Amino acid sequence: MTMTTRLDELPGRRCSIAGALDVVGDRWALLVVREVSLGAHRFSDILRGTGAPRERLTARLHALVDAGVLERRQYSANPPRSDYHLTRAGLDLLPVLQALMQWGDRHVADTPPVELHHHGHRITASWVCDVCGERMGRGVERHVRHEHDALPR
Amino acid sequence: MTMTTRLDELPGRRCSIAGALDVVGDRWALLVVREVSLGAHRFSDILRGTGAPRERLTARLHALVDAGVLERRQYSANPPRSDYHLTRAGLDLLPVLQALMQWGDRHVADTPPVELHHHGHRITASWVCDVCGERMGRGVERHVRHEHDALPR
Repeated sequence: MTMTTRLDELPGRRCSIAGALDVVGDRWALLVVREVSLGAHRFSDILRGTGAPRERLTARLHALVDAGVLERRQYSANPPRSDYHLTRAGLDLLPVLQALMQWGDRHVADTPPVELHHHGHRITASWVCDVCGERMGRGVERHVRHEHDALPR
Repeated sequence: MTMTTRLDELPGRRCSIAGALDVVGDRWALLVVREVSLGAHRFSDILRGTGAPRERLTARLHALVDAGVLERRQYSANPPRSDYHLTRAGLDLLPVLQALMQWGDRHVADTPPVELHHHGHRITASWVCDVCGERMGRGVERHVRHEHDALPR
């Protein structure tokens, strides 16, 4: 996979959030990832599921392949046809979608159109620290590693 | 707070992720939320921290106030001056930023510029179900509540 973004080249605070948003900071990018994760692999299905304008979608798919979030796989040699699959990096975006879904359920949707369930109960999920098992709250400290993470002048 | 988005009015699949992205599906919107969460409340500080073009930032701040993510508070009456604070809905976006940061740390940054710590250890976090405490994985089932969540034709 190739990630061409370098944090130093982005404006503002040097930050991995900005780096992530340089790749997926566009509604269509994340809706593409949603569609592919739901099993829509072909262009026409992704087009229908996202509702993106066709040209924007074409550009986004190329960019996501270049960024290593999606990979193209040929499913027919003659005529040549490819579809799109999530890479490891693409799968790793699912928590971002989950966080957005939970926020949209709470603050945008009158009635959440989709509920996530497992083991028969409805899921509401929290970010929990892998080390100590505590829920992420405001007690988190930022440790700045590089001096040039400081704000630009 | 006023959320003017209605899921029915958005293209594509009826979905809270699309609803959330209608509000914050823009890199500047989420970088504004990051900056305010880090204590940058005034326009000039948010401008510097995000590196956003000035007019884009002005438009974004208005939209985020209208959407109920930020609120303006007057801190000086004469001359009249206001700054920006996160509402409850704005604070609820922090898990989205955390998920993006973790993805950026893993897939974009050579060296993560900031580490999150608590209780002396570095945090890597997972989404964990509030009910059963299991880590969110691929076993999650989607329960579609409305027929019109079905894909548009």
